[in-house]
Amino acid sequence: MTEWHLAGGFRYAGIVSGLRSEPDRRDLAVIVSDRPAAAAGVFTQNRVVAAPVRVSRDRLPRADARAVVVCSGNANACTGGQGLADARRMAELVADELGCVPEQVLVSSTGVIGRPLPMPVLEAGIPLAVRAAAEGRQALSDAAHAILTTDTGIKIATRVVGGHTVTGFAKGAAMIGPNLATMLGFVLTDAPVGEHDLHVILKAAGEASFNCVSVEGHTSTNDTVFLLANGDGPKLAGHDLAQFREGVFAVCGELARKIAIDAEGAEHLVTIEVEGCRSDEDARRVAKTVAESALVKTAVFGADPNWGRVVSAAGYSGVVFEETDLSLWMGDLLLYRAGTPLPFDPAAASAYLKHNREVHFRLRFGGGPGRCTFHTCDLTTEYVRLNADYTT
Amino acid sequence: MTEWHLAGGFRYAGIVSGLRSEPDRRDLAVIVSDRPAAAAGVFTQNRVVAAPVRVSRDRLPRADARAVVVCSGNANACTGGQGLADARRMAELVADELGCVPEQVLVSSTGVIGRPLPMPVLEAGIPLAVRAAAEGRQALSDAAHAILTTDTGIKIATRVVGGHTVTGFAKGAAMIGPNLATMLGFVLTDAPVGEHDLHVILKAAGEASFNCVSVEGHTSTNDTVFLLANGDGPKLAGHDLAQFREGVFAVCGELARKIAIDAEGAEHLVTIEVEGCRSDEDARRVAKTVAESALVKTAVFGADPNWGRVVSAAGYSGVVFEETDLSLWMGDLLLYRAGTPLPFDPAAASAYLKHNREVHFRLRFGGGPGRCTFHTCDLTTEYVRLNADYTT
Repeated sequence: MTEWHLAGGFRYAGIVSGLRSEPDRRDLAVIVSDRPAAAAGVFTQNRVVAAPVRVSRDRLPRADARAVVVCSGNANACTGGQGLADARRMAELVADELGCVPEQVLVSSTGVIGRPLPMPVLEAGIPLAVRAAAEGRQALSDAAHAILTTDTGIKIATRVVGGHTVTGFAKGAAMIGPNLATMLGFVLTDAPVGEHDLHVILKAAGEASFNCVSVEGHTSTNDTVFLLANGDGPKLAGHDLAQFREGVFAVCGELARKIAIDAEGAEHLVTIEVEGCRSDEDARRVAKTVAESALVKTAVFGADPNWGRVVSAAGYSGVVFEETDLSLWMGDLLLYRAGTPLPFDPAAASAYLKHNREVHFRLRFGGGPGRCTFHTCDLTTEYVRLNADYTT
Repeated sequence: MTEWHLAGGFRYAGIVSGLRSEPDRRDLAVIVSDRPAAAAGVFTQNRVVAAPVRVSRDRLPRADARAVVVCSGNANACTGGQGLADARRMAELVADELGCVPEQVLVSSTGVIGRPLPMPVLEAGIPLAVRAAAEGRQALSDAAHAILTTDTGIKIATRVVGGHTVTGFAKGAAMIGPNLATMLGFVLTDAPVGEHDLHVILKAAGEASFNCVSVEGHTSTNDTVFLLANGDGPKLAGHDLAQFREGVFAVCGELARKIAIDAEGAEHLVTIEVEGCRSDEDARRVAKTVAESALVKTAVFGADPNWGRVVSAAGYSGVVFEETDLSLWMGDLLLYRAGTPLPFDPAAASAYLKHNREVHFRLRFGGGPGRCTFHTCDLTTEYVRLNADYTT
């Protein structure tokens, strides 16, 4: 088993509750902190927000979180007032087991939209899951499995920084999936950090990682990342806090990259590097537009070095630039320099796309300070097949 | 042959110049107005703009246009200073034949980006095309064929209004194609209309038609629509001008719809109707976001009534609304009313998608005046196959 570092004082479970039709599929996860933990969250920017997001958002940041409960297979989104009551009930079932108040419990869901949760299944399953929660790698692995939808494998990333451990696991990417595969991330640490510092760090780490991954740009109703810190003692500050922040960035970055490479039907991880823009936000807009272009993504799938698609996608990003400021590399190959195409060997360029599972495009604009690294995947016939039939 | 109405005083040609590798493929079109014509144009909003767009944009609006020359197979985009010189030379070759100045000639191109035009082919072909220009349906059909890239057929729409004729033809949609299939439209009329009125009418008609069609949202470097009016006599005004405007709207609307239904690999024409927004622009943003969602489009392809994808796409459009204001119909079937899902028969809903080549989604928000009708197509495995390999 991979060398995972486990933050102290957290227990995990991932059980087969029966939410899903597959009989042996883990579908219900809990994370329990033995001590009250500082907690922060970042959430989808969609106007249509799932019930568990509404419930958890109202509870954060806070200083005394005790647990997170997550179900997969049903998003509990577009489910009206009943959905809100159901999400609150999920937390209440955990709180009853732990002897805490429901507000100390956070909730996430992922799966199909617009169907009520099968509450009898959860009434039975949640207490079992809380009682099953245990320390150790197997329990973490079980929880990481239970949150998956169409992911092909679990995604775990850990770091040890300054004597403290940061343990993260995640699933999905944007709405990659036939399940409307929400992106969920859970980052746990035994470092002592206050909830407001946590919130600032998580927001910045999320921007640089999960917000720089896109499969097809469809923002889910359920996207959620939680960061819980249960460390005792004086809160980290100064250099120690900065070091902790680096650890959270590293864990979120690794999880985001794992999400992109595992996107449905994907054969390539595509990294778009943009530099020289007026601001990081401009660079991100360019990178995101290129990353979400169906024509760029099909070209990578077909190993077609059709670089005009990349340049033209940059052009409709909404960012103002002069064509004569733009240069483009594919891998090490400079294809377009300051607005002028360069001769290149199409066979060699095609071979680069064909023989590398990870491919890079680099766009350089003028001399501005703005930059962004963004990840996506190719658009394949398999993606269309997977997404063409789910609910029926 | 279909009953096309031909605006008087225009001649057309579409010839096999040899720009394309297919030996019998028409690839060079000209439109000649026997009299100087008022002319207006609307163009791509991409920051990366093809040379023919730059050249034509500088020449419009004008009162004395004499011709349009169009080549397909090569976009003359991202071609630097040479590209600009080549686009100007295309116009000059036409002007030499007609005995007018080059500024009276407009230029368009569509095809692959980043390759220099094969000018010897055009030096030979353009004079032949101008000399071949003729009146009549066959000549119009030839020109309409010569501008195609991956379109499966020509797109022509005509109207007679107030004794004048509006004749339009078009190709492509957004960047639907492996050719980077630009959208081009040419609308000709024998009505007497001044160039500034033409510009205002064309801009509004383009917004309501070509700007409400999207295949995958990839804005081309070459999108162009020209409107030429060569009528003698006092310029239309008041009621007559309003009637003429309706004719242009009708022709542009029909061409846009033909573009959407002919999108690459498409099996469905999908119409998104949005109403009750604060403004038409808000309605258009919602409609465009739904229309460009890969998950909505794959669901239609798979006849999967996964309506959560439509609602969640509306939610990330950037338009502010309350979920409880939103209702959704698929065809006549109300699926989601004021934020609450309604029970429905999935088999019947799937059958609606399966058995109709044209399908409708209707989203109603609050009671605002803003509305939009937008067209797109489904995302099919065939689309990915067509776009996965072009330049190599």
